[in-house]
Amino acid sequence: MRIGELSHRTGVPVATIKYYLREGLLPPGEATGRNQAVYGEDHARRLRLARALITVGGLSVAAAREVLEALAAPDRSTYNALAVAHTTVTRHERDPAVPEEARERAAERVRRLIAEQGWQLPPDLPAARTLTDTLATMEHLGNHSFAARLDRFAAASELVAAADVDCVDEVRGSAEAMAETMVVGTVLGDAALAALRRLAQQDAARRRYAPAARDGDTDGDCPQPGAAAGDAPAG
Amino acid sequence: MRIGELSHRTGVPVATIKYYLREGLLPPGEATGRNQAVYGEDHARRLRLARALITVGGLSVAAAREVLEALAAPDRSTYNALAVAHTTVTRHERDPAVPEEARERAAERVRRLIAEQGWQLPPDLPAARTLTDTLATMEHLGNHSFAARLDRFAAASELVAAADVDCVDEVRGSAEAMAETMVVGTVLGDAALAALRRLAQQDAARRRYAPAARDGDTDGDCPQPGAAAGDAPAG
Repeated sequence: MRIGELSHRTGVPVATIKYYLREGLLPPGEATGRNQAVYGEDHARRLRLARALITVGGLSVAAAREVLEALAAPDRSTYNALAVAHTTVTRHERDPAVPEEARERAAERVRRLIAEQGWQLPPDLPAARTLTDTLATMEHLGNHSFAARLDRFAAASELVAAADVDCVDEVRGSAEAMAETMVVGTVLGDAALAALRRLAQQDAARRRYAPAARDGDTDGDCPQPGAAAGDAPAG
Repeated sequence: MRIGELSHRTGVPVATIKYYLREGLLPPGEATGRNQAVYGEDHARRLRLARALITVGGLSVAAAREVLEALAAPDRSTYNALAVAHTTVTRHERDPAVPEEARERAAERVRRLIAEQGWQLPPDLPAARTLTDTLATMEHLGNHSFAARLDRFAAASELVAAADVDCVDEVRGSAEAMAETMVVGTVLGDAALAALRRLAQQDAARRRYAPAARDGDTDGDCPQPGAAAGDAPAG
């Protein structure tokens, strides 16, 4: 199909498609003449994925290119699928104001966590560095409460990871589908999990801090420890 | 203190401090003459926080300004502290290529999830919209496996949220400290949780897919369902 139809089929504007072609997010189409090329189904699929990783997943163009290149690489073992997802760890700037001692304490904390969880991991995973930097920055800001509950956050992450691996297992048999499932589930999944966390926070805070039962909250479905029955205005 | 000392104390370069002042991330210092101003402890604290939210938390300058303004606002009830954290939901571009029907199905799925979890939430939370958009985009990409396990991801998020509320509860009594704990724990916590998820994925995938026990893996600490004992080379 021509670029106009590719745009129509995917809902991605022609200008954006040209930008992605220039940036190497999409391979060039098959040339059919001066300034003319045709594109296939594979282009449409990859274009949809690129667009979603960037807009909804929040990846930079450079990070999206790295992910798409890894997906297109010929060696796609299960472990490679994982490695692809790992390239999508947010590559943040280090905060240079954080003192080296705080970083060393955080690195030790991460090593201890990994040992306590019984995780067997290759050394120098980017995610371990990100976790270390983040904990060091929290300490620098005077926040010790997150690190104090790191085992609870890790336990929740194990539940997430078990579901993630089940997602990938569903398409076992196709290394390509496994890698793509891992990438979409991890990158877009991060956005979904951040949203779920905020919804759950809202409900957890309401249960803990709701100042009083409100109109209509009289069915007792929901524990409100702070609320005495007498506080509720009569309906 | 002068701007030079503020820079020395916080490790943030003078040029960055001036940029944050121009962008309204920091309130102006107290003027002591033409082009001279002095800064207090509050500036140092806010500067460290701004820097961390942007570099490690990955917030845009505009998003960081919104968070810092909300933290500095005089009304800081518990619920307001929550609302501040909610402003930090990744504000992604919507993917316009996702068909309206997919969005409606996703919205229905989110409503059903909220009902099933028993979450009592105010209407139109930004996080609910983010979750809806993300699920719709996944469906558009042909990924149904994440949505099929949404209850498991929600259950994990409840564990995270319970720990989050415990973090905030630790500083109960100071509305200011509660709000700041919520912001740091949520924004930097998202980065930490994304990293923990990848570490846990790595271990979960190893347990599921490890092709064979490797040298030294003979202590039997760790179940490797796919590995027969005979596969391990003699040490």
